[in-house]
Amino acid sequence: MFGAVAIIGLGLLGGSTGLAVQEYLPGVHTTGYDADPATRERARARGLVAQVCETAAEAVAGADLVVFCVPVGAMGAAAREVAGHLKPGVLVSDVGSSKQTVLSSLSEALPGVAIIPAHPVAGTENSGPDAGFASLFGRRWCIVTPPDDANPILLTKLVQFWEGLGAHVELMNPQHHDLVLAVTSHVPHLIAYTIVGTASDLEEVTQSEVIKYSAGGFRDFTRIAASDPTMWRDVFLSNRDAVLEILQRFTEDLTALQRSIRNGEGDRLFDHFTRTRAIRRSIIEQGQDDARPDFGRSDHNGQG
Amino acid sequence: MFGAVAIIGLGLLGGSTGLAVQEYLPGVHTTGYDADPATRERARARGLVAQVCETAAEAVAGADLVVFCVPVGAMGAAAREVAGHLKPGVLVSDVGSSKQTVLSSLSEALPGVAIIPAHPVAGTENSGPDAGFASLFGRRWCIVTPPDDANPILLTKLVQFWEGLGAHVELMNPQHHDLVLAVTSHVPHLIAYTIVGTASDLEEVTQSEVIKYSAGGFRDFTRIAASDPTMWRDVFLSNRDAVLEILQRFTEDLTALQRSIRNGEGDRLFDHFTRTRAIRRSIIEQGQDDARPDFGRSDHNGQG
Ligand SMILES: NC(=O)c1ccc[n+]([C@@H]2O[C@H](COP(=O)([O-])OP(=O)(O)OC[C@H]3O[C@@H](n4cnc5c(N)ncnc54)[C@H](OP(=O)(O)O)[C@@H]3O)[C@@H](O)[C@H]2O)c1
Ligand SMILES: NC(=O)c1ccc[n+]([C@@H]2O[C@H](COP(=O)([O-])OP(=O)(O)OC[C@H]3O[C@@H](n4cnc5c(N)ncnc54)[C@H](OP(=O)(O)O)[C@@H]3O)[C@@H](O)[C@H]2O)c1
Repeated sequence: MFGAVAIIGLGLLGGSTGLAVQEYLPGVHTTGYDADPATRERARARGLVAQVCETAAEAVAGADLVVFCVPVGAMGAAAREVAGHLKPGVLVSDVGSSKQTVLSSLSEALPGVAIIPAHPVAGTENSGPDAGFASLFGRRWCIVTPPDDANPILLTKLVQFWEGLGAHVELMNPQHHDLVLAVTSHVPHLIAYTIVGTASDLEEVTQSEVIKYSAGGFRDFTRIAASDPTMWRDVFLSNRDAVLEILQRFTEDLTALQRSIRNGEGDRLFDHFTRTRAIRRSIIEQGQDDARPDFGRSDHNGQG
Repeated sequence: MFGAVAIIGLGLLGGSTGLAVQEYLPGVHTTGYDADPATRERARARGLVAQVCETAAEAVAGADLVVFCVPVGAMGAAAREVAGHLKPGVLVSDVGSSKQTVLSSLSEALPGVAIIPAHPVAGTENSGPDAGFASLFGRRWCIVTPPDDANPILLTKLVQFWEGLGAHVELMNPQHHDLVLAVTSHVPHLIAYTIVGTASDLEEVTQSEVIKYSAGGFRDFTRIAASDPTMWRDVFLSNRDAVLEILQRFTEDLTALQRSIRNGEGDRLFDHFTRTRAIRRSIIEQGQDDARPDFGRSDHNGQG
């Protein structure tokens, strides 16, 4: 196991990682840094890491593992700040939501340093230093995307690190990660952002009507569409190709359903809706969601 | 207040209405009927109404208010079964998710009978006689859509009926209702059904990967896309024009965001995402959702 971990970026993901290490891997020393002085202050107050440093260089100086927890568009700049200050033998990793561009940004900024990116598929729509909690990763997947020449010992240690925080770890290549996440996360977010925008632009329906009657389905989209704008801008720009490819398929499928509605083809609609229901059942059976009315979210005590 | 209420269709909405009347308006007698003998049996076992009848004609015989709680495509057939068996002075209403076609189906089947449609904007993704619960309508909106020549006394009684079950009542004309609900409910459902289908058709990404990594946003869509296929087929076919109109706007907006991603226009994406965030805040402030991790769903005790 790593003796000391440095966390760069102390928002939802960085804060949760720091809290989780202190709770589940108490022998590991934690340091941290955030570009925003107000965030550093909140991080100290909440004890997100044992030691909040005033520079990134200071935070990484003694670390065996450095985890970048900044928006994916900021990975390169954040890594350049620590170049030359890393301990020999250090492993650099991250928690970014897209992996191909992160791997190249980190590799460019830190030539000769061992880099193995990762992505814990766990989050909420909240961000910032007050959003994190230690149990965020519990029973969630963490996808580790080692480059072909990754050091196997460092890879094993990184896998054990995430398992230590409660996650199930899966290995994947960065390209495949980006396609899978485009489907299960990035395009759903883009669609939610779109429909919430469409609704608020309508002239015939007032914003107050949209809000009043949101219980009919819309409110679940607004929750997703409340996610952090910086993070999501960066996700779409960094995973552009996969997002555009999945969007293209989605648009074709939507056009087909639209045609069925226009032509009154009830059987086609019924068959499509019956098929999608089965997927929901599998998700519940496989424990990635919960049939209870709160989706089991109350399991995250102290959250809220 | 009505002395006796008949409920036709004893699934989620009918069952919840029956339970709510018995709990919150205990002086009102309840009868009910469902086309499915197995549903009638479960309705008796759960006590969804005081008296489950073997025919619709029997159920409505003594009723001052008849509420049709069947899929919108079945409203006409269900109404024809009670024609000639209604008490003089009865009010016929319903809970269907679209209103223009329901008003014409009921009017055609029951000429000369007082009809005032309504739509409680409250539901879950579950259906059938085991899904209902008395508090479903509490603090939710119920939209009443009186035709121009509605009897004002019957209208007042219907409003008081829904208020008695805990709902906030709003009056609207049927056309406007159908447009508002197309935005806040029907198109969001169609989009969720579409993306869940798209994901399950991909060859490059396995279904098990989609399910495993659904915590990134996708699972909220699968919940919506698990809703009853019959009900939703009927909603789309009955509210075709408004759904197609809103879909058209949505598609234009999606194309614009797609273009911004392709061209790397980060500022546009950021501005759009910032704007949608504000809508979420208003929804929480106005009590139509909840910032708690369970969205306040645990308030519905005994559900689940
Ligand atoms: N949110 C989720 O659901 C989720 C899930 C899985 C993975 N992720 C990934 O996790 C990463 C962090 O997301 P988050 O949700 O934790 O965001 P967040 O709460 O906004 O935290 C990011 C923090 O990084 C700081 N930062 C930005 N540039 C920096 C730099 N150069 N050096 C040091 N700190 C810097 C930010 O400060 P400023 O506010 O001053 O910019 C902010 O405090 C992203 O890559 C995201 O894709 C997020
Ligand atoms: N679910 C929601 O979230 C929601 C919200 C607001 C409004 N609504 C509206 O409420 C209505 C009912 O939906 P629901 O969710 O309660 O559906 P549900 O749980 O499937 O219940 C509908 C019941 O009506 C029965 N039925 C069908 N045709 C009938 C007939 N001719 N006579 C008597 N019973 C008949 C069905 O029996 P079979 O199973 O044998 O067909 C079924 O038991 C729909 O119009 C829907 O648009 C639903």
